[in-house]
Amino acid sequence: MIVVKVGGSLGIDYDALCADIAELWQQGRRVILVHGGSAETNRIATALGHPPKFVTSPSGYSSRFTNRETLEIFEMVYCGKINKGIVERLQKLGVNAVGLSGVDGRIFEGKHKDKVRSVENGKVKILRGDHTGTVEKVNTELLKLLLDNGYLPVLTPPGSSYEGVAVNVDGDRAAAALAASLKAEALLLLSNVPGLLRNFPDEDSLIGQIPADNVEAYLEFAQDRMKKKVLGAAEAVQGGVGKVIFGDARGAKPVQNALAGHGTVVS
Amino acid sequence: MIVVKVGGSLGIDYDALCADIAELWQQGRRVILVHGGSAETNRIATALGHPPKFVTSPSGYSSRFTNRETLEIFEMVYCGKINKGIVERLQKLGVNAVGLSGVDGRIFEGKHKDKVRSVENGKVKILRGDHTGTVEKVNTELLKLLLDNGYLPVLTPPGSSYEGVAVNVDGDRAAAALAASLKAEALLLLSNVPGLLRNFPDEDSLIGQIPADNVEAYLEFAQDRMKKKVLGAAEAVQGGVGKVIFGDARGAKPVQNALAGHGTVVS
Repeated sequence: MIVVKVGGSLGIDYDALCADIAELWQQGRRVILVHGGSAETNRIATALGHPPKFVTSPSGYSSRFTNRETLEIFEMVYCGKINKGIVERLQKLGVNAVGLSGVDGRIFEGKHKDKVRSVENGKVKILRGDHTGTVEKVNTELLKLLLDNGYLPVLTPPGSSYEGVAVNVDGDRAAAALAASLKAEALLLLSNVPGLLRNFPDEDSLIGQIPADNVEAYLEFAQDRMKKKVLGAAEAVQGGVGKVIFGDARGAKPVQNALAGHGTVVS
Repeated sequence: MIVVKVGGSLGIDYDALCADIAELWQQGRRVILVHGGSAETNRIATALGHPPKFVTSPSGYSSRFTNRETLEIFEMVYCGKINKGIVERLQKLGVNAVGLSGVDGRIFEGKHKDKVRSVENGKVKILRGDHTGTVEKVNTELLKLLLDNGYLPVLTPPGSSYEGVAVNVDGDRAAAALAASLKAEALLLLSNVPGLLRNFPDEDSLIGQIPADNVEAYLEFAQDRMKKKVLGAAEAVQGGVGKVIFGDARGAKPVQNALAGHGTVVS
């Protein structure tokens, strides 16, 4: 079982990704695809007159502030445009794909965080009405049912709170929790960079290997969203995933390249 | 098995609908919900600078012209906002709902119509690039798998062409084809009117009963989109569905009311 997470940043080649996954699938590999949609969500939200609002926590992590209106725009782009676009690409290639959010069958379940602490002008503010959560539980029964019957699951945030409320969850960490639940042989975290870079954004400074027992030491090289990918990698490897690979989704065969060791391998 | 189709027009009470479905589900009834999203799609499309374009066929039927850009907006609203909003409502009520489009698992499959004939100023024009289709085949295996394992399917257009291309399909006729494939005991077509009206929009002129062998005779009373509902009813009854009921989704208990015979009953 391979869990592939592909980001939602600019430059990602979804056609190449889907062609590569279709090839592996038709060879009999079991694959689950998880995707993002952040860049397109920002574009649509801005076009609808609700530009995205990001908050920075006191510990330095940046995240989207997701009130109800933003959640609905988020769902439109992630669950509508991006998810169905990927399912359509796979269907055209003869793969019987099924697109689901983490709310469907409560695949991604966890606590709803209604309040968020935000650092603004050096002061910590409390913002309420946030639809954000953390994946604490992955309900894999539905996914196993689909895989056992020949369907390739294509998953996307949001997730579900324990009360059934839709909450924005981090896609990388959701994929990591999923890979750990399934004891996947590999988790691939594909984005628009070649992997973890020692000197971001210098692509020649790629870190090729990270020992699984020392992932946290590499957090210092991670910029912004890459921090969550490194945290996700640590969680996955500690949770029993064979290896985690940060790979490049901008060109041909992104999945097979990553599986061959191109990128940053955490094992 | 009951198939409930709820429209996407203004005035529909989705909270009441979901509460009613949850009650029936928890009594052990098997239910599949199919929904629309036309009014909200028009609103979002207009806000994004792509107001909807409707065409009228030479035989007098009105339909949405769906180029690729419109298809993606359609997917955002139907598969994203509306579908996940309904799934979330049901999950909050303890129903393990799973939202899918007709592209997922190719549930709704049929021919892709790329060209459409449109009457403009009395002349017939040919428009190309349309993503429209007709449901000719309902792939029910995935739905049976979900129902047998305790998941309530929440379905929405688009459907899939035989080539895997996403196509806008009429929700009422898709629900009718689904109900026929499953030999459902009842198909409920719920919208923002009490049923078929002899003198539209006079709600006191409700037609209570239509004999199943004479559905077409009532087409003359059907305005606009109601024509497709009447056609869908004919197809469903001819296909082995026990009865079709046009009911009102603007108030409490819309499903149980329709099952009790409130509305227009075709049997």
